[in-house]
This record gives sequence, structure tokens and C-alpha cells, in this order.
Amino acid sequence: MRIAVLGLGTVGRQVVEVLDLERALFAARLGEEIEVSHILVRDPGKPRPESVRSRITYDPRDVLEDPSVEVIVELMGGFEPAHSYIAEAMRRGKSVVTANKEVIARSGPELSRGGTPRADLLFEAAVAGGIPIIRSLQESLAGNRLHGIYGIVNGTTNFILTRMHEDCVSFETALQEAKERGYAEADPSDDLDAVDAARKISILASLAFGGWVDVDAVGRIGIRNITAADVREAKSLGAVIKLVARAESTPEGLALGVSPTLIPKNHPLADVGGAQNAVYVRGEPIGQLLFEGPGAGGPATSSAVIGDLLDAARARRVGGRSVALPLEPAPLLPPEAHSHAYYLRLLVREEAGALAAVAQAFAHAGVSLRSVHQPPSGDAEAMISLVTRPTSRQQLERAREMLRGEHAVLREESCILAEMEAEAKTGA
Amino acid sequence: MRIAVLGLGTVGRQVVEVLDLERALFAARLGEEIEVSHILVRDPGKPRPESVRSRITYDPRDVLEDPSVEVIVELMGGFEPAHSYIAEAMRRGKSVVTANKEVIARSGPELSRGGTPRADLLFEAAVAGGIPIIRSLQESLAGNRLHGIYGIVNGTTNFILTRMHEDCVSFETALQEAKERGYAEADPSDDLDAVDAARKISILASLAFGGWVDVDAVGRIGIRNITAADVREAKSLGAVIKLVARAESTPEGLALGVSPTLIPKNHPLADVGGAQNAVYVRGEPIGQLLFEGPGAGGPATSSAVIGDLLDAARARRVGGRSVALPLEPAPLLPPEAHSHAYYLRLLVREEAGALAAVAQAFAHAGVSLRSVHQPPSGDAEAMISLVTRPTSRQQLERAREMLRGEHAVLREESCILAEMEAEAKTGA
Repeated sequence: MRIAVLGLGTVGRQVVEVLDLERALFAARLGEEIEVSHILVRDPGKPRPESVRSRITYDPRDVLEDPSVEVIVELMGGFEPAHSYIAEAMRRGKSVVTANKEVIARSGPELSRGGTPRADLLFEAAVAGGIPIIRSLQESLAGNRLHGIYGIVNGTTNFILTRMHEDCVSFETALQEAKERGYAEADPSDDLDAVDAARKISILASLAFGGWVDVDAVGRIGIRNITAADVREAKSLGAVIKLVARAESTPEGLALGVSPTLIPKNHPLADVGGAQNAVYVRGEPIGQLLFEGPGAGGPATSSAVIGDLLDAARARRVGGRSVALPLEPAPLLPPEAHSHAYYLRLLVREEAGALAAVAQAFAHAGVSLRSVHQPPSGDAEAMISLVTRPTSRQQLERAREMLRGEHAVLREESCILAEMEAEAKTGA
Repeated sequence: MRIAVLGLGTVGRQVVEVLDLERALFAARLGEEIEVSHILVRDPGKPRPESVRSRITYDPRDVLEDPSVEVIVELMGGFEPAHSYIAEAMRRGKSVVTANKEVIARSGPELSRGGTPRADLLFEAAVAGGIPIIRSLQESLAGNRLHGIYGIVNGTTNFILTRMHEDCVSFETALQEAKERGYAEADPSDDLDAVDAARKISILASLAFGGWVDVDAVGRIGIRNITAADVREAKSLGAVIKLVARAESTPEGLALGVSPTLIPKNHPLADVGGAQNAVYVRGEPIGQLLFEGPGAGGPATSSAVIGDLLDAARARRVGGRSVALPLEPAPLLPPEAHSHAYYLRLLVREEAGALAAVAQAFAHAGVSLRSVHQPPSGDAEAMISLVTRPTSRQQLERAREMLRGEHAVLREESCILAEMEAEAKTGA
């Protein structure tokens, strides 16, 4: 079976290398040899290794219009021209394997319906790299009514938060380290501002809850404002701050969002360190499941891409089709109706009654507090950190407004989600 | 689509209940309704709930010979008659979903080849309950060359070891508690003696390494001899004792076994507590992956069974076949050639030079030690616990024989595997 690879970056090179190297192994598993016959690249000026040179092409029509090419592996990244190539390939009856979360999050449902009956669209690599969460949601967990999905699905931000937690370094220092170690790109905005994580949770939610979730409907708060002081306070509360992407089923619709979240040390996601990814699923009858593994990088992505490729190749020989993404939009719960606990850190005057005034403000707004903490201070300014009980966004805003009117309160320094009542770790 | 359920124990009842309750949900996911038309039970004397009474039959021919029944869900347990029913159903072109690890471990390859081309055999529920490890090995990870699989795949023994670790209770007390809480059967021998875990690792290894592993080839050591003193010593070494089922690829063949194993607290499997299961996979290019979730019980098993059922039903409509188990036997590394580190606990005379004599014995046998620990003792007897560096079984036996000849050594109290050099937790 002849296949083509579009794009020869880190992942593309690794996929071609593994397919060339393990040709016999995959032929045994599949009952047929897989041959990378075309490799589409953009830049004719770049030197290419001897092993791929004869297969290189710069013209997409060489690949798309060749009827002998049965599967396209799209690893170019970015929306266009990747999106057009995928659509065209599928209209021509080719199956497509892609790691492109942008294309899937924006156009997955149309693409998966736009091809001929033989044209499959597989995208395990688009979310959480090597972790087989897409297939698990589409197939293994299809017998469940899922309640919630919680993911650490961005390795860059998890690396930064892990470094801040381990050594109490500042956000800037941790970001610099992430860049030096190749975990953050030159412009890391999509990671830091949770754009990447929002794309991924929109894909996961669409599969888990059977309705399409537009990525623009996912509320996003990034990690740029997390300070060493927040991390220190989290530690003193027996917690850790993670960028959690979540989708929860409620009777009124899906509650979706990505934001830095305070989670207790015994939460299933608390131990997920460095650039690792993890996805935690709750549902009926399964209970709880945790998947943890490498979320990005050439090797993990290659594993997912080649798994999909073998599956697509197999389907073309013995039949079968991948599960299509839903077209109908999922009903969503408006953000103001989400119920969450919150962690706030305030700068107050060091004076008798400051803590009482803060507690009073929350009481007046109808927000219950779970804990309030005021470390000793020798200054004229002091810090108060607190965790609320679950409350609506509306009530929280009322409390924040009252705080702004308090003489004792100088300013609010942080306000992030908290999941301190989370059930115990799956292993407990 | 009409399907039949064989067996109406805890799992059978739950599967029928979920299929009845979620008929509309599954019809939407599948594009076709699933109807449980027959339920085969053995005991005509037992009272049955109203909701299932009209579908009950006592005659297997009612199910097997009815051509309108397309999928059989086998939940009877035990080898016969389950095995014969599965074989007969598949010969008649029905697909089969089973949770029966005994049948799959003993006859999986023959069964998966004995049916008509439309007859699929799916068995996600047979290993690690709700964790989608079977499908992940068959499909998502098919692009990898796997190096090792390490599983906590028996909830009963993990519950017992967790209780011993948490509260330093004796094995007998923990076993009693497991019985009271429904985690251990009246006769728990298959669990305690690692028979159950051996079946599961033989299935996982067959899928992961592409050759059939006979369950009788899996070396088994159970947990009956683990004492509170061992657990205490493990703790003082920063470790925990788990019943680990492992399959490792070596150039000379697979190294297989199930045995209590000392693992460091930062090992990916160390935190898996209670009756939970987990499977940890290492391979190329994936690196490391961890799956953790409920390993047994009605809900978890139902989740896996219904996921398989929907998959089997889908394949009958849109085509496709499940991956067959390999028939060819896998090359195995003989147990005496396995290389492992070991943990030993010795009772010695409280006298100067006891520790030196023990260390000397290992040195003479050519076994390097990683650590030796002799807690202070006021008695005439003292304890020495030690961990070796990786060594062959043969060399270990030589060292143990030398110990038996040492005047200072009264007796060996424990000798189990140790994985103290394991790589750090996936999250580190």
C-alpha cells in the first residue's frame, strides 16, 4: 500500500524513519507492506537526507492526484493549506491521518463527512500525543454516559507550572527554561494563553458528549498571571496549580473551560509533572479512569500517527470506518452559570479586623468560604489567601466588587478556579 | 440488532440493565437499536426480576441456533461450558464479546480463528476491567516496538497489599478485610497465588509482542508469604511491595512472570492503591504510558463489555474485523536467565561481624549489593534486609546457598524481586 507524508518537520521525519525501519514488522501486523511513496515539502532550498530524496515532491497535485496513494499523513501544521489538502484527498477517496488539532477543532465534522465512503479521517495524535484518548472515547468508552473530562493537555504550560512548584522560580524564569529545553516555541502565546488546550478539550468534549463543541465557545484563562506567591500559597494549602481543561456534563448543557486551577495533592492530576499530559475521565458505569503519558514531541506523536495509519490501512483492506465527529452542536451551559470554587489572593492593610472584613464581604455576597489564611507579616501590607465553596460566577463577582469597596483591601492579586473538594485520587 | 447475554451474575445483570436503560443513547451512537432478546441462565429455581423474565432461557440451543441473534455476550465465567458456547456461536457466524480471561488465556487464538469471517471475538473486559488496554495494544500502540508491560492486574491482592502498607496489618487481617468488603472470594487462591494475574499478563504479552504466550509458561509467586515485617522494611527503604505482572522483551525472548516486587515510591505503579488496576507500558517511539482505573466489579466490567458490544455491532453493519490473537508461540527466555534485583530479609545472630559475613557471602557469589540495612536490636537475634543489584537467578541461588552455610545467619525470611532502579515516574 502506497502512502504519502505531507510535511517533513520533527514528526514527519520520525514517522518516515519508523515506517522505513519497521517495514517488516508492520507488514507482519497488517498482512501488507506499507510504502511511503511521496513526501510533500515546501522549501526546495532545504537539504534533505539521501534516504528520502527520491520521494520528495513540491507539488501537492503529485500526491493528491495519484490514485495509487491510498492514505495521506498530514503533518504540516497550521490551518491552510493543510485543511484544503485533507479535504481534497478525502474527496478523492484517500484516507487521512493527521496530528493537526487546529484543522480538526475548526473543521473536523465537515471534513469527516466530505470524503467518499472509503475515506477515513483519523486524528489520535491531535490530542495528548501518545495517549490513546481519542480511540478510547470513540470506542472503548462508548458504553458509558460520561460525566466529565479533565485534562492536562498542554506540555509547555505544565512544564512551567511544575518548575514553579518544584523550585519556586518565577513564571519568567520557568518560561525561559522551557524555551531553552525546547518545550516552548519562540512565540509561546498559543500555549500560555490556553488556545492550544482549548482546541484539544473542544475535540475531546465533542467525542465524549456526542455534540459538536465550537472551540470559540471554550472559556480560556492562561497562566501568564500565575506568580511564585500563588504557587507558594497553593503548596501551603496542600495543593498545586495546574492548567486544567475541563468539560462537564450538566442537565442544562456542557460546562467547558480551560484555566489555571488549584487542585489538592491527592487529585489524580496533581502528580502529572514536567511536559507530561494526562486525561482523567469520570462516567457511568466506568467510575474513574486516568491516562498518563507523553503529550507531544516527535516520538509520542509518531506513535499515535503510525497507530492511526495502520488502522486506516487495515480498514481499506478488511472494511470498517472510523467514528465520525458529530455535526450537531452540543448544548452549552453559559459561563456565568458554571459553579466553581475559587482561590483568591488579596493584598490587605496589616491592621486588626482585615481578615474579618474580607470574610464579611464574602458573607454579604452569599459566598461561603472553605478556608482563609493570613500568613504573619511585619509590613504595613499583608496577604490573605482564601478558597471559597462552589459558587456561581455571578455571586463571585458580587463578592469581588464588595472587596473593592473595603478599606482594608488594597487589591486582589489572584483569582483562579479551585477544585479542593475533588474526589480522592483514583488510586486511593 | 438482537443480541444474547449468557450468565446473569453481577456483571450480566448490570450489562442488561444498562442496555435496557440506555437504548436510545446507544441507538444514536450506533445508528441501530440493540435489543437483548435472550438471557441464558442455568438455575431455573432462582427468582428473576420482572424486567428480564420474558427473555430468560435455560437451553443454550435457543440462543446458539437462532440466526437472528447476531452477537453473544458471554458472562458465565469458568472454562466449560463457556468455551464450547463461544466456539459454537462463532462457527455459526455470531460475534462474541466475553469477559472470560480463563477461556481467552487458554483458547483465544483457536477461538478467534474458528469462526466465520463475520464472527468477531472481543475481550477488553478480560484484562484490567474498565481500562482500555486490549484495544490500545491491538490498535493505538500498533506502531510501536514495545519493550515491556508491567501491570497491577489483580484488585484483590492489591487491596491486601495496600492495607498492609497503610496500617501495617498482617496478611491474614488484610485478607479478612478484603473478604468482608467483597474484594476477595470465599476461595481466593487464584488471586493470592497469582493464577489470575498470570492469565492476564499472558493475554497482554500475546497482544504486545505478537506471539502466543501459554499461561503455563508464566512463572508465578503469590503474596501469601509477605509479612508485615517485609512491608515495614520496604517502607524504610522508600519503597512499596506490589504484585507486579511483567512481560519484557529481550533479544533472547520474552521474560515473563508475576511476583511480589519491591518498587520505589516514585515508580509509576507505586501509587496504585486499593482494588485499582494499572498497566504501565514502555516502548519505542512512545516512551512510557500509564493507564489506571477500576480493574474489576460490575460497573467497570460492564463499561468494557458494552464498549466491545457496540464495536462488534458496528463491525457487522459497516464492516471491519477485530485483531486476531497470534497463533505462533512467542520465544521465551527461560526463568533462570532472567536478570533481576532482589530484596532479601534475613534473621541473624546479634553479634559483631554478622553484616560483614552476609556481605561477604554475596561477594563470593558474585552478586553486588545495592544496600544493606540492619536495624538496632536488643535481642540475641537481629534482622538484616538487603537489596541486590540485578543478577541472574543462578547467581542469586549461589549466594543463598552460601548464606545457609554462614554461622551468623539463622534463616532467610523473605526473598522477592526488587525494581529499585526503575526509571522515575512518568510524571517526573
